[in-house]
Amino acid sequence: MKLVLTLSLVAHLLLAAPAALAQTALDGFNAERAQAQRRREEQFRAVPAPNSAREHLRILTREPHIAGTKADYDTAVYVRDQLRSYGIAAELKEYDVWLNYPNSPSIVELIASRRQRLNIHEPVVPGDPTSSHPNITPLFNGYSATGDVTAPVVYANYGLPNDYDDLKKAGVDVKGKIVIVRYGNSFRGVKAKVAEDRGAVGCIIYSDPADDGYMQGDIYPKGPWRSGESGQRGSVQYLFDYPGDPLTPGRPAIPGVERLKPEEATNLTRIPVQPISYDAARAILSVLKGPVRPRGFQGGLPFAYHLGGTNDVKLRLKTDMDYKIRKIWNVIGRIDGNEEKERWVILGNHRDAWVFGAVDPNSGTSAMLEVGRGLGELMKQGWKPRRTIIFASWDAEEYGLIGSTEWAEELAAELKEKAVAYLNLDVAVSGPHFGASSVPSLWKLMRGATMDVKDPKTGKSVYQQWQDRSREGRSEGEPTTEARIGPLGSGSDYTPFLQHLGIPSTDMGFGGDYGVYHSSYDSFYWMDKFGDPGFVYHVAAAQLWGTLTLRLADADGLQFDYTDYAKQIREYFTETVRIAGRRNLGSSFDERSMNVALDAFANEAQRVNKLREDAVRDADRQRLLRINDALIQTERQLIDPRGLRGRAWYKHQIYAPGFYTGYAAQPLTDFRQALDDRNGPNAKESLENIVQAIKRAANTLKQAHGD
Amino acid sequence: MKLVLTLSLVAHLLLAAPAALAQTALDGFNAERAQAQRRREEQFRAVPAPNSAREHLRILTREPHIAGTKADYDTAVYVRDQLRSYGIAAELKEYDVWLNYPNSPSIVELIASRRQRLNIHEPVVPGDPTSSHPNITPLFNGYSATGDVTAPVVYANYGLPNDYDDLKKAGVDVKGKIVIVRYGNSFRGVKAKVAEDRGAVGCIIYSDPADDGYMQGDIYPKGPWRSGESGQRGSVQYLFDYPGDPLTPGRPAIPGVERLKPEEATNLTRIPVQPISYDAARAILSVLKGPVRPRGFQGGLPFAYHLGGTNDVKLRLKTDMDYKIRKIWNVIGRIDGNEEKERWVILGNHRDAWVFGAVDPNSGTSAMLEVGRGLGELMKQGWKPRRTIIFASWDAEEYGLIGSTEWAEELAAELKEKAVAYLNLDVAVSGPHFGASSVPSLWKLMRGATMDVKDPKTGKSVYQQWQDRSREGRSEGEPTTEARIGPLGSGSDYTPFLQHLGIPSTDMGFGGDYGVYHSSYDSFYWMDKFGDPGFVYHVAAAQLWGTLTLRLADADGLQFDYTDYAKQIREYFTETVRIAGRRNLGSSFDERSMNVALDAFANEAQRVNKLREDAVRDADRQRLLRINDALIQTERQLIDPRGLRGRAWYKHQIYAPGFYTGYAAQPLTDFRQALDDRNGPNAKESLENIVQAIKRAANTLKQAHGD
Repeated sequence: MKLVLTLSLVAHLLLAAPAALAQTALDGFNAERAQAQRRREEQFRAVPAPNSAREHLRILTREPHIAGTKADYDTAVYVRDQLRSYGIAAELKEYDVWLNYPNSPSIVELIASRRQRLNIHEPVVPGDPTSSHPNITPLFNGYSATGDVTAPVVYANYGLPNDYDDLKKAGVDVKGKIVIVRYGNSFRGVKAKVAEDRGAVGCIIYSDPADDGYMQGDIYPKGPWRSGESGQRGSVQYLFDYPGDPLTPGRPAIPGVERLKPEEATNLTRIPVQPISYDAARAILSVLKGPVRPRGFQGGLPFAYHLGGTNDVKLRLKTDMDYKIRKIWNVIGRIDGNEEKERWVILGNHRDAWVFGAVDPNSGTSAMLEVGRGLGELMKQGWKPRRTIIFASWDAEEYGLIGSTEWAEELAAELKEKAVAYLNLDVAVSGPHFGASSVPSLWKLMRGATMDVKDPKTGKSVYQQWQDRSREGRSEGEPTTEARIGPLGSGSDYTPFLQHLGIPSTDMGFGGDYGVYHSSYDSFYWMDKFGDPGFVYHVAAAQLWGTLTLRLADADGLQFDYTDYAKQIREYFTETVRIAGRRNLGSSFDERSMNVALDAFANEAQRVNKLREDAVRDADRQRLLRINDALIQTERQLIDPRGLRGRAWYKHQIYAPGFYTGYAAQPLTDFRQALDDRNGPNAKESLENIVQAIKRAANTLKQAHGD
Repeated sequence: MKLVLTLSLVAHLLLAAPAALAQTALDGFNAERAQAQRRREEQFRAVPAPNSAREHLRILTREPHIAGTKADYDTAVYVRDQLRSYGIAAELKEYDVWLNYPNSPSIVELIASRRQRLNIHEPVVPGDPTSSHPNITPLFNGYSATGDVTAPVVYANYGLPNDYDDLKKAGVDVKGKIVIVRYGNSFRGVKAKVAEDRGAVGCIIYSDPADDGYMQGDIYPKGPWRSGESGQRGSVQYLFDYPGDPLTPGRPAIPGVERLKPEEATNLTRIPVQPISYDAARAILSVLKGPVRPRGFQGGLPFAYHLGGTNDVKLRLKTDMDYKIRKIWNVIGRIDGNEEKERWVILGNHRDAWVFGAVDPNSGTSAMLEVGRGLGELMKQGWKPRRTIIFASWDAEEYGLIGSTEWAEELAAELKEKAVAYLNLDVAVSGPHFGASSVPSLWKLMRGATMDVKDPKTGKSVYQQWQDRSREGRSEGEPTTEARIGPLGSGSDYTPFLQHLGIPSTDMGFGGDYGVYHSSYDSFYWMDKFGDPGFVYHVAAAQLWGTLTLRLADADGLQFDYTDYAKQIREYFTETVRIAGRRNLGSSFDERSMNVALDAFANEAQRVNKLREDAVRDADRQRLLRINDALIQTERQLIDPRGLRGRAWYKHQIYAPGFYTGYAAQPLTDFRQALDDRNGPNAKESLENIVQAIKRAANTLKQAHGD
């Protein structure tokens, strides 16, 4: 009882205080500078406008613009030219990367009592004008292998390792079979990888209506959810191994660089993989025999699912992929800093889409252009940022973060020295609910920015609305804490910056009922009708992104708080130790050395906070430069050049995607994986690497003192 | 960690010990008597046989035998004559009670763009011979009102109060409308009551495939689950107010007794209520407009549910009920005790069914007859029980525990003096998984009996299989404790015995995938094919029931352990205090006085255990009589003659069905309800009543000492 009261009191103070202070203090700036900064931010936030955001989106989503196509190139030119029109220097940056398109649409044919060719085209939807576009990409998976297999079918639920364990328990063998799995609970590349590892010869991935269809709400075009004939495209790259161009891991895909042979690339599947709709899946699943599904396997189609595996129901899966080295085009814009030109604040969003990509990613592209327009207005009034601001419009993100990864690999040395932070925005808007992920050192900055942007629907601050909504979901008596800012896993372009190079990163967006992900119905019409009628959340996203950018670019003392980082790592560690205990692995590693390292890190973080505060107040430029550099370089220390176990491209010791989640972060990655594998020696070694990283980070913070 | 290890060690000992001791000690008997008792029990358990159980079931389920019909009477005569054939005196016992049948099948007609009469007949199923019987009861609800209403339709989820709160939040009013609700999460009478209270003019109840249909598994006749055209009949009596004949609450429905007018009966609904299948529900739900359903409302039909309430979709519901005072027939069999004739061990099962009732209730009737046959065999060898054993085959349980309630009301005074325990069995078998509910004083007896009966499928003891299965469902690291024996709520015939009279009661059965509840497919064919092929679990149920009976009927010292009772009440209280704290009601009642009373009760319980043990060892008959009477009368003290708040028929201070659950027990009933109502003064008063009851119980235990 007491604990609950105390916590909610603290939360109350936390929530109440910033509003009162909002108009006065501003972290990173002294009192006088804060006022000017706030005025400038307000000028900036007055610029982004619904009509303008709407027009960007309309133009960007006129045509399907999958990476490497002419239509994709056209959007690059549009972004470049728009940035230039705001007074921002901008250029295309080209890479040559390994991409596949389907030569011909795949064949999915059921061979049960009779043969039945299943539909893999998304039909025209009355009212949605782009849905009849002749160039709509057929349903296919990026980086699927070419293949033509005919085999019995097994339903493998979400296609996770424990699903296959359940199949085994039920006596169903997947070797030599085609598995059909549903989307959800893991990145689709993981589904392909596990299917391949278990001996399946092909893999069908479908959207189950329980997860992504009528059980979530009204289906398109009546509502925003996935309809029966809609499928989810997407890459099946093993991006948990490494992202980017499969043929140039760790190197940029530019002329002259050494390339792997495709068969040497370890992040590609060797089996055909194909997405289908739930109407098509229904035709397969409804005729499967074999055992009734175990607990947790039932989906939302109106019959009892069976596991299949019998010889009387077979499927033919034929994929015919046109693999080539193809050109892709990032757009890089730049506003040079007038005092610290060699310190970069980077804003990134991808531009390529599986089809039209109104939500994913061009709501973000539209927001980025509005940020550019806003900063352009400030420049017209004579403003220049203290630090350099870089706009990055990435290409081929959908295939596996290709554009961002190649660029980060090409500029690795420079980025390690110069990058202050990487601010990602992929989906800016699919609805009205704010959400964010970031490294813990930037939590306070993120929260502060949301306090100064209005939520369009409620008129409250984005912060307040975010907190209120988060509290709604809580049950009676649960302690009231601030809405959670998630950990960064993968699935968008922050990955090369944070997890390969150690650059502090954030990601955010406004979410909602989004049932057209990676379908041809992720269209301008959908956005206009369901996602953001009025385009007000596009504006809010631009205001938020720009506010973050201005604060980081102009701050005297960078707003990085490593006490939050230390606290968060300690929570991860406590939780992981608990898991270790349950698995009787509690004595296999040195818990104490981690606690000592964390204590030291937390102490240094607290000292630096005080130091920075004093230096900001005293406007002591020399000290601030040293402190800021220490703060920037601290995150870098969490990088271990040896990389993670078995996947050396990933080097961050705290954050990486889980091997079997693919997107979702698995904090303290290798340590946690070792515990999942019940491997004591690996757990010990992984924790030692983490402890070393934390010690390096603490030492770097110490350098802020310059003594 | 330590706690986990310790608990699992204790559990291990608990699990290991009884097996080792099984052949030696037997609670309630001294060493010498134990051996004879065990031999006798084994003789008994050798009698029940699959063929015989199967034949009983075949005969009992030949015809639909709803309460009060000729076919029902025929089953009464069969049970009576079978008991007599085993040498057990048996008689019919008639009551005159208020029952309804449909005069004509109900009309459910959709009036949307076109009129559509919905099917409410369960079709013939190939292979199930009784499914074509001409007398199959139409789909209707017992105690529905007669009515003919046409109104807009609102989907109200499970029809619980918070579902209506959600409707209100969504702006949907149910006043003057027909609500359609799904089965589950509450007794259907609660659904009718809440609908009526909220102003609905009619109520449709359907079986959703998410809860009871294809999402659970293959549907009949391919599998055991509910098919699209099958509906669930059942009573909508407000049995949480009082069960039994609606016109004679608290009194027996015999000639000369004063009767209420039907309109005075407070346990009857005033609106028409009608069950339908999910195929019929689909026709309604799929055309509803209004808001998309809130979280938790979506069921398993293949579209997004809407709440309805708009004027363009209406329903006509017409019910035409033939209400009359009708005759029903209990069968009461009796084996007189040869030493304590005026102490009764009562076995009860109902016999009436909505249609054929192979599972519910005649698997229990078949098991009861096998118990009778087994005891008959013992009698042939000269055995007579020490105490009297009564067999009760109840009628009209389905309408609201009518037969059992009227009998308990008629014999109230005698039962209060003489009843040792009431052992209920309603559904004996719907699958292989053992489950039980009972007062805590009988937990050890129940567990002990399951250790001596074999689980037919595995060859392990029922106890071991029950524990193993219970452990399977637990997650990693959860403490291992014994499988839970549930609390007794309502929904079967133990209610008048435990909750009106304070007679220690048990309920049990073997459960499984049971998707034909209260449908015409709860048939002999279903049982033979899915429920219990081979009828081996019918045999196990009879063995278990008879073993419990023999132990209680022949024990020197009755196997009642009130330390378990005290411990269980303390757990309920701790949990409830926690809830009070969350609602800031923690200071509204006297927690200390309850803890003092529980301490005293627990102490006395422990002293009596020791006393009984000594008296059994010493074979001290005089002391044993005094101790046994104290043990029997202790449960009686938990009865408060004033009854529960607003429903005086329910008198037990610890166990009663919740007002808004209807079946499920809500321990510390009135106290808990006051907290749910956020009513501090009621909470205080209710807890005082409970404290008094526990004090009375402790005092009664003290009388065992005779000093």
